[in-house]
Amino acid sequence: MDVTRELAKYLVSSSLKEVPEGVRHEARRAILNYVGCAIGGSRQEAVEIAARVLGPYSGPGTSSVLGRGERVDPLQASFLNGISSHILEYCDTTPKNYNHPSSPMASALCAYASTTVVAGPAFLHAFILGFEAQTRIANATYPAHYNAGWHTTGTAGVFGAAVGMGRLLKLDLQQMIWTIGLAATQSAGLREMFGSMAKAFHPGRSAQSGYLAALLAQGGFTSGVYGLEGPRGFAAVLSTAYDLDKVTRNLGVEFELPYNTYKPFPSGIVIHPTIDGCIQLQKEFQLTAAVIASVRLRVAPLVLDLCNKKRITSGLEGKFSVYHAAAIGLVRGKGGIAEFTDEAVNHPDIRRVRELVEAVGDPTIAEDAVAIEVVLTDGRRIAKRVEHAIGNLARPMTDTELEEKFRDQAGRVLPMSQVNEVIGMCWKIDKLEDVRRLISAACVA
Amino acid sequence: MDVTRELAKYLVSSSLKEVPEGVRHEARRAILNYVGCAIGGSRQEAVEIAARVLGPYSGPGTSSVLGRGERVDPLQASFLNGISSHILEYCDTTPKNYNHPSSPMASALCAYASTTVVAGPAFLHAFILGFEAQTRIANATYPAHYNAGWHTTGTAGVFGAAVGMGRLLKLDLQQMIWTIGLAATQSAGLREMFGSMAKAFHPGRSAQSGYLAALLAQGGFTSGVYGLEGPRGFAAVLSTAYDLDKVTRNLGVEFELPYNTYKPFPSGIVIHPTIDGCIQLQKEFQLTAAVIASVRLRVAPLVLDLCNKKRITSGLEGKFSVYHAAAIGLVRGKGGIAEFTDEAVNHPDIRRVRELVEAVGDPTIAEDAVAIEVVLTDGRRIAKRVEHAIGNLARPMTDTELEEKFRDQAGRVLPMSQVNEVIGMCWKIDKLEDVRRLISAACVA
Repeated sequence: MDVTRELAKYLVSSSLKEVPEGVRHEARRAILNYVGCAIGGSRQEAVEIAARVLGPYSGPGTSSVLGRGERVDPLQASFLNGISSHILEYCDTTPKNYNHPSSPMASALCAYASTTVVAGPAFLHAFILGFEAQTRIANATYPAHYNAGWHTTGTAGVFGAAVGMGRLLKLDLQQMIWTIGLAATQSAGLREMFGSMAKAFHPGRSAQSGYLAALLAQGGFTSGVYGLEGPRGFAAVLSTAYDLDKVTRNLGVEFELPYNTYKPFPSGIVIHPTIDGCIQLQKEFQLTAAVIASVRLRVAPLVLDLCNKKRITSGLEGKFSVYHAAAIGLVRGKGGIAEFTDEAVNHPDIRRVRELVEAVGDPTIAEDAVAIEVVLTDGRRIAKRVEHAIGNLARPMTDTELEEKFRDQAGRVLPMSQVNEVIGMCWKIDKLEDVRRLISAACVA
Repeated sequence: MDVTRELAKYLVSSSLKEVPEGVRHEARRAILNYVGCAIGGSRQEAVEIAARVLGPYSGPGTSSVLGRGERVDPLQASFLNGISSHILEYCDTTPKNYNHPSSPMASALCAYASTTVVAGPAFLHAFILGFEAQTRIANATYPAHYNAGWHTTGTAGVFGAAVGMGRLLKLDLQQMIWTIGLAATQSAGLREMFGSMAKAFHPGRSAQSGYLAALLAQGGFTSGVYGLEGPRGFAAVLSTAYDLDKVTRNLGVEFELPYNTYKPFPSGIVIHPTIDGCIQLQKEFQLTAAVIASVRLRVAPLVLDLCNKKRITSGLEGKFSVYHAAAIGLVRGKGGIAEFTDEAVNHPDIRRVRELVEAVGDPTIAEDAVAIEVVLTDGRRIAKRVEHAIGNLARPMTDTELEEKFRDQAGRVLPMSQVNEVIGMCWKIDKLEDVRRLISAACVA
């Protein structure tokens, strides 16, 4: 079975009117969330460094960077959009495979759409196709690929960016096959980078690499034609087990977008149940740092695999510490952007409570659940069990909550009138004649 | 053991005077071979496409591309140098790990050295350090990493480019550690791409990615600090077995450069014994296509793993066909650039003889050996056994042969007076006050 060819065939022949409205609306939600994250993260240190270092290497500035003012070439804009949309750890997540699909893909599409006229429906369709392709590829190799240590947002993300761009560039079948091959052979990103700027580098570089793949394929740059399924192709080399049927089965009939979720807390998603439960406890018992004597968490084993650092000094590390997650929930009763800064991580109250937290892996606890026990200084024991963390598919963020999240992030960067204008355009993106209107509104004038 | 830190320590503290002259001379040979390959391949279709497609995205043209006339930004120059220096399959090869180390690394160093003043000794030293680092990393993960389907020239090459650039940029220890991390997390390249332009894309992208890693690290962009040895780091994720002690053992005392080899034929190295032996037979018996009735090869099993395509139509595929290798040796008595063109692959005589070739894998045949039996139309049987193919460590190319190879390639692109000038400067590169002199002479004025 020619998986790469089958997928490419669908990508070049699909039409937007075959996509159900429910899927389109989920795509609008994902785009809204993406744009908010990209604006919200656009002034973070990692973005500032990358923009400063790479500015002198930019080609003609035909492209805008979301949330920012400079004009750079679209490959560089893809890269910067990718970093900024991921750096706050506020991305969307597909729980089937722990991928953050919008960041790498939409970062390329937005960079392109700021250089030329892209009609709203074409943009939405490319987004949907890029989402489906990368999610199916991630599903096909999950969990072996992820468990091996790959950061799927890098490794699968490059496919989303490549084929989304391929669709916008109107590639033919042969070119789309090469695009997939050129994406496969750039697929990279190690989970070892979690807690450093290099994590957000992954969707940045994947966005740029996917864009590059589509450009080169359009120009006739050839690749192997079995990029996904070949004996030395993506699946065989990057995963010890896989089911490539998941890439092609019911393409265009079943969609993955309805299984997308949005992070309510800017941190690694597996610590969300802990934040959620600790916030509930703080509110219920009006907790303060001073009254907490000890904290015991029972968490899914994956949580300790990913987020087991207690001695931390930076906000980026805090996003991957289940101990920090418990501390901010119990001490501050919230888990917003301010709770994952260097300041919060080094705050004496939070640091003290963090040190009081113990976490044990328990295979009977699901990955979106947690059991929390707190002993207070007066000897009382209080407890909370979360079965499905907020933001999960069982408790999805509403459209209104997504708008609030958008305003909370983007309002730190752009005037609120501009922020509201962007939100409005995201909801009706497929009515826009030129997506540049949205991108311009999402940047510093 | 902190492998990444140990390696980085050596890289930032090593001095050229501790490097034995024999190692330095081998580096000069590798640079000579590299520059010849980069000039020789600079007009190939893959390079033309990449230059045409990416030209509009180039930053200010501060950098030259070897063998060519345009000025582009150094990241793009790294990319184009990487493609051109690999596309003819004429690279150097480290037989311990089947890596082609100079192409990804020197492509970045030459791009940088054309933008600013780099003194010859600094260039030579950065080249030696980049060579050692990537070769040790490739040794540490060979053969599991290679056998899994990774193209080491991409996956290890990015480390060479990153640390070589890191040295030229005079990074401190922390920055060098981040550079290694940023290289690790970009490590990519699938053997599935062999026979297409995407194979030469690997050293191109690795050169560019390594350059990028060093620039970002210099600017303070952080990465995980256990890029090589961490539980989700390069070795654990990209190789099922490894010995990281090979990265750090006797650093600065033992060198890998003396184990480098140079390809006498522009093709996959594992078919060199077949080309060598068939050329010998052709010369000995004055063979022509018409007198050949059948050909039987006994080859190392790896040869069939890599080069088992008989039905081919392009020169790039010919470079990875043991059948084509036998045919050109027997029919033309040579295996130069002209024997791996589309024309040669589709020539009726060569096609006919190619179809007469059978190849069997035989574990008793070493990877640099072959046993050839040819039946002639008059019924005679002739045979040749090659124990060590020409170009191998046991039969290394001499300095003079390397010069001839250089002239044969570069003379197709640049005037011979210029070619000879470049050869002269490669031999005395560590006497140059500014390596730009060499790079300028290796480009179209």
